[in-house]
Amino acid sequence: MLLHLMTWTEVEEYLKVSPGIILPIGSTEQHGQTGLIGTDAICAEGIARGVGEMTHTVVAPTINVGMALHQATFPGAIALRPNTLIELIQDYLTSLTRAGFTKFFFVNGYGGNVATLRAAFAETYGYLTDLHIPNAEKVQCRIANWFTCNSVYKLGKELYGTLEGSHATPSEMAVTQYFCPETIRKIPVMAEVGSLYPMHNTTRFRRRYCDRGMGDNSILATPEDGKHFYDLAVEELSEVYLEFLHGE
Amino acid sequence: MLLHLMTWTEVEEYLKVSPGIILPIGSTEQHGQTGLIGTDAICAEGIARGVGEMTHTVVAPTINVGMALHQATFPGAIALRPNTLIELIQDYLTSLTRAGFTKFFFVNGYGGNVATLRAAFAETYGYLTDLHIPNAEKVQCRIANWFTCNSVYKLGKELYGTLEGSHATPSEMAVTQYFCPETIRKIPVMAEVGSLYPMHNTTRFRRRYCDRGMGDNSILATPEDGKHFYDLAVEELSEVYLEFLHGE
Amino acid sequence: MLLHLMTWTEVEEYLKVSPGIILPIGSTEQHGQTGLIGTDAICAEGIARGVGEMTHTVVAPTINVGMALHQATFPGAIALRPNTLIELIQDYLTSLTRAGFTKFFFVNGYGGNVATLRAAFAETYGYLTDLHIPNAEKVQCRIANWFTCNSVYKLGKELYGTLEGSHATPSEMAVTQYFCPETIRKIPVMAEVGSLYPMHNTTRFRRRYCDRGMGDNSILATPEDGKHFYDLAVEELSEVYLEFLHGE
Amino acid sequence: MLLHLMTWTEVEEYLKVSPGIILPIGSTEQHGQTGLIGTDAICAEGIARGVGEMTHTVVAPTINVGMALHQATFPGAIALRPNTLIELIQDYLTSLTRAGFTKFFFVNGYGGNVATLRAAFAETYGYLTDLHIPNAEKVQCRIANWFTCNSVYKLGKELYGTLEGSHATPSEMAVTQYFCPETIRKIPVMAEVGSLYPMHNTTRFRRRYCDRGMGDNSILATPEDGKHFYDLAVEELSEVYLEFLHGE
Amino acid sequence: MLLHLMTWTEVEEYLKVSPGIILPIGSTEQHGQTGLIGTDAICAEGIARGVGEMTHTVVAPTINVGMALHQATFPGAIALRPNTLIELIQDYLTSLTRAGFTKFFFVNGYGGNVATLRAAFAETYGYLTDLHIPNAEKVQCRIANWFTCNSVYKLGKELYGTLEGSHATPSEMAVTQYFCPETIRKIPVMAEVGSLYPMHNTTRFRRRYCDRGMGDNSILATPEDGKHFYDLAVEELSEVYLEFLHGE
Amino acid sequence: MLLHLMTWTEVEEYLKVSPGIILPIGSTEQHGQTGLIGTDAICAEGIARGVGEMTHTVVAPTINVGMALHQATFPGAIALRPNTLIELIQDYLTSLTRAGFTKFFFVNGYGGNVATLRAAFAETYGYLTDLHIPNAEKVQCRIANWFTCNSVYKLGKELYGTLEGSHATPSEMAVTQYFCPETIRKIPVMAEVGSLYPMHNTTRFRRRYCDRGMGDNSILATPEDGKHFYDLAVEELSEVYLEFLHGE
Repeated sequence: MLLHLMTWTEVEEYLKVSPGIILPIGSTEQHGQTGLIGTDAICAEGIARGVGEMTHTVVAPTINVGMALHQATFPGAIALRPNTLIELIQDYLTSLTRAGFTKFFFVNGYGGNVATLRAAFAETYGYLTDLHIPNAEKVQCRIANWFTCNSVYKLGKELYGTLEGSHATPSEMAVTQYFCPETIRKIPVMAEVGSLYPMHNTTRFRRRYCDRGMGDNSILATPEDGKHFYDLAVEELSEVYLEFLHGE
Repeated sequence: MLLHLMTWTEVEEYLKVSPGIILPIGSTEQHGQTGLIGTDAICAEGIARGVGEMTHTVVAPTINVGMALHQATFPGAIALRPNTLIELIQDYLTSLTRAGFTKFFFVNGYGGNVATLRAAFAETYGYLTDLHIPNAEKVQCRIANWFTCNSVYKLGKELYGTLEGSHATPSEMAVTQYFCPETIRKIPVMAEVGSLYPMHNTTRFRRRYCDRGMGDNSILATPEDGKHFYDLAVEELSEVYLEFLHGE
Repeated sequence: MLLHLMTWTEVEEYLKVSPGIILPIGSTEQHGQTGLIGTDAICAEGIARGVGEMTHTVVAPTINVGMALHQATFPGAIALRPNTLIELIQDYLTSLTRAGFTKFFFVNGYGGNVATLRAAFAETYGYLTDLHIPNAEKVQCRIANWFTCNSVYKLGKELYGTLEGSHATPSEMAVTQYFCPETIRKIPVMAEVGSLYPMHNTTRFRRRYCDRGMGDNSILATPEDGKHFYDLAVEELSEVYLEFLHGE
Repeated sequence: MLLHLMTWTEVEEYLKVSPGIILPIGSTEQHGQTGLIGTDAICAEGIARGVGEMTHTVVAPTINVGMALHQATFPGAIALRPNTLIELIQDYLTSLTRAGFTKFFFVNGYGGNVATLRAAFAETYGYLTDLHIPNAEKVQCRIANWFTCNSVYKLGKELYGTLEGSHATPSEMAVTQYFCPETIRKIPVMAEVGSLYPMHNTTRFRRRYCDRGMGDNSILATPEDGKHFYDLAVEELSEVYLEFLHGE
Repeated sequence: MLLHLMTWTEVEEYLKVSPGIILPIGSTEQHGQTGLIGTDAICAEGIARGVGEMTHTVVAPTINVGMALHQATFPGAIALRPNTLIELIQDYLTSLTRAGFTKFFFVNGYGGNVATLRAAFAETYGYLTDLHIPNAEKVQCRIANWFTCNSVYKLGKELYGTLEGSHATPSEMAVTQYFCPETIRKIPVMAEVGSLYPMHNTTRFRRRYCDRGMGDNSILATPEDGKHFYDLAVEELSEVYLEFLHGE
Repeated sequence: MLLHLMTWTEVEEYLKVSPGIILPIGSTEQHGQTGLIGTDAICAEGIARGVGEMTHTVVAPTINVGMALHQATFPGAIALRPNTLIELIQDYLTSLTRAGFTKFFFVNGYGGNVATLRAAFAETYGYLTDLHIPNAEKVQCRIANWFTCNSVYKLGKELYGTLEGSHATPSEMAVTQYFCPETIRKIPVMAEVGSLYPMHNTTRFRRRYCDRGMGDNSILATPEDGKHFYDLAVEELSEVYLEFLHGE
């Protein structure tokens, strides 16, 4: 069930059954020489919808952009400042809490969002209470990074070993290829594994990865791998979601 | 060309040819008894992509939510406060201006966004200049409401006369049906035409339209009409875009 | 009745009879070679007071500055950023709503204020509701641009034809002359009509109108015309106000 | 010279001679049973214009509202939150500094503005420097409370002794009567002297002064006294201004 | 009683007896050639604890940094912008008011904090009321500058005469020596008395005091003097506090 | 070297040798029945000073309060909203970067600060670059939680096994006892181990831990253990710091 394809009365009916909603969030930033700018959003959206189907849960419209300030000097990046992302999340949660949703499950495709999301949740818990919004006390938010699922991590290690890296990884390339096979660029890329370089200042970050972006061993990725990752992530996150939904 | 399906080096190449980008923006809010919550975003996204194809222009990821505070009491609405939307737009424009984009063409699917978008543009023109960002002086933003295209307006009057209304209109229903035929709900709805009721306070707004939402004469809409509206809007907005792109 | 010339107990009495208040808002910015920097505020204030007298309505102190960022490079401009203007309007409306006012009629002298005012209204409707302020539900705001009154527009066309333009227009010059006859500068000015140039970046805006400002065909204006415009605007806006006051 | 009655080219000429500008700021709040809501703004505006004439200095449009939150429960008050007032002052100073003004002399009619004005100055000194605005280093702001002029204070003691008080004082009543003789309410009022009650919470403040407001011994005030106060304040503040203008 | 050395149940018990709390606030900025960067915080903390002991009052953790923007170009300064300090104070007061504290006594060691603190108090009085926080109506804040105590001022004049100055004064040097005797630098310093130079722009401020900082006649200070100042300040502020605590 | 006990010229000298600074940050919140409200700040400050001594590094004044909103209903808590903490950190970093510091090492005593600190760092990296502050490109921030040091974690498991928990842990109790032996409350407490309960809403959080707070097995802690933890943390963090300082 995709929120944007429902009517408001259907949402009203749904809320009699469940207070849960899944919110996909990604980023819009470089993913190496062959990776798509929308990789993080594409993966989060696709997997979130899989979880939504498996658990009969409403899925909100995807938040396509995230906290990607250090990527700002690579053309195509759209970065929200942390403060902006906090305000955005606050408005999402306030609107949906007013309607009756109280269990917010963020399927996240981008590590750079985690800290700001957590800050946003804390800000919003306080805000909803301060405004005396009904059910404020029941509101709970959870971040679920598909790429840190145990099963996903294990498969990544099996398939790519140390070449998996941490950005523009073969696994997210594979998932993107699975969802958007028409976009596969078959240039053999054997990039340095994008992993440990500190992501502080955008100018310096750019200088470090000037002519190729960070990461991208897309030569290793296949849509078939992507399907495999997708299946594992959906299954594992569905369990996590249901536990979250029914938890205290 | 969809930004999220490009690589950053493709964006770099594109910018050598054109500084223009199309940004679809919609809303997430009730559209009567049968209209989709995502109607405004669906129409804006689909038409923006049509304009992008016709004019060989990059299309940014869709901004799915907008300034819909007066809709806040209908389940399923996600509303950004004006201040949040201003911050969001500022971050989009700042990121893209840094990369070299300077002509921003917002294909808008929701009347309620217009004022806040304009405020955001003014705020950002000043902000970019204050930060001494290169090309700040060249930045221009334009709002293009697909639903106020001359050709669209004329067809709406022809097909539906006074039943067109101003919210959850048959024309946007038709366009949505064209893009998402699988979502058509064939309940015969003959709603009061949603037009002039003041949209101030959300509680009062809800009371006024309590059991049906505002507008929605979807019985009049067909996917074929939708195709027709789509073609007209894409053609007219493509012309507007090109004039904007090449204008002083 | 001017708010600043009343006592608080008189306001208390007034509120037993009417919840309406008129708020003049202008701008402080260049108006060509002979037009006054305060033109927009002077016109708004004078006409607002006329409407106040005709309808026995309280008139608030004039908001003299507005959203004039693109004018920032002409000496004498004082520009509020949109965010600042939103905060300001929010504070005005919150203060006055607490007292019991709920119908806010902004007589506006400057087109550049409209978008930000609308954004401010939306922000404030939500804010008042969130804070559970009594009567929040009843609050309504309306912008009345004196210069877009039908009768005013018609007279402008009659008197000046295409030389009316859109900024530092003969009509607002005339109204200013009517209110401040001592300030009339009788230099024959035949400026290019200020109309369509995009008002984005202040540096570029200044370059375009470098040695004269934008608009200003003051040679056409007379205090007698001003009186005529004033009478028409007051009559038309008084009707609009009363309809607004008594409307649902 | 009133800024709003000048043209922008006249401002440009003025700036070749002087970088100084006078900014009147008042408040909009109760002044007892017979005092005008606009008392503080009326006094500040009138005296500022006097100083402007005596020193050939530009006077900006009056800031009519101030930091009057503790007055919020008396009908007619319009109060800016400190944060809003800081933003407002920042925008005034930024606009005017861009034009070339660097010596800002605030003629203040309301004690409640002082702390927030000072905070705003500090915020703005930093802001102008951070944005690398030309002349940022030269900017200086000064608050001149007309009511704490030595000569004014002395006359107040002479005329009214301990009945002068601290709010809705006979002296500001007198100055208001001098500027607006038509508004004199001749009800004999002998109020408790408004002086030491802590001005913290607006609800408590209202309860303390419930049926009369705070202060107001208007029976003592006359327009003649007002003229006397006016003359003294203009003379003393003109000296202060010139010293400030020519100081390091 | 130091808050950070108490348990929460001890605080709960304390609140049954008293709603008062003492909050030390200082600054982190240059104090001349031999004065400590933390002088203002050290003095405020030490004296606040003395008052806490004498009056059996809880003392909050010291706010070590303040509004020191004009000091920003001297290495070691940490300056909060006024807006940040306002937010900080608002959060302190909101947290503590929720717990039941309502009498907030700020022992302040730095003149530059006063205006922003007052603005923060006004902002918070309104904020607490708007959020309908219990006891909001009872909240009162008071600033107590130890250095403007009558007894302190008198002793300073006696001991140092006109060499006392206004920044990095012998008296605060002495108090710091009393608290931190191990930090005494015995370089004979006879600085220009830091008093009247306008503290506007940080670049200019630095240029004025380039190679020595402002003030600092530490040659005059002794730990014995410091003890004397401490005793006087604690005694006088304890009286002020108790009057404040028991006042209306 | 403690920043607040240095003079500004000593800081200037230090910066010729090292760009590094250590910033202790804690929290002010309940720590069970016998744990001190300032536990997190006390541990962070003490260990940070240890690291400072071992590595000859300047230590900034302790940030005593943190992001503790979910603790807000326990008396004695002082909680900064995430947005406030972000502003605060931004001001600290901006001030210190202007002086020449570029390596910021936060010794953190409270898990609840981590997300907001990370968001603050990202916000500040962008901010410093936008303002063209010298050395902005070199700025790097690192969070070092003393309680997640390998050696500390291992010792905690050895000494307390599963009773270590996650809040008001025996290990932080022990460190606090080591620093403040005079505050040891010897009530035998065997609390439920504070570990997994979700920390969302403060009201619910309080209800869950109503009469005892969360965690606190202080019966297990001894000052001798504390000394041991301290030594391990200082040694391990000193290594981490030096690697960070000398890293790219």
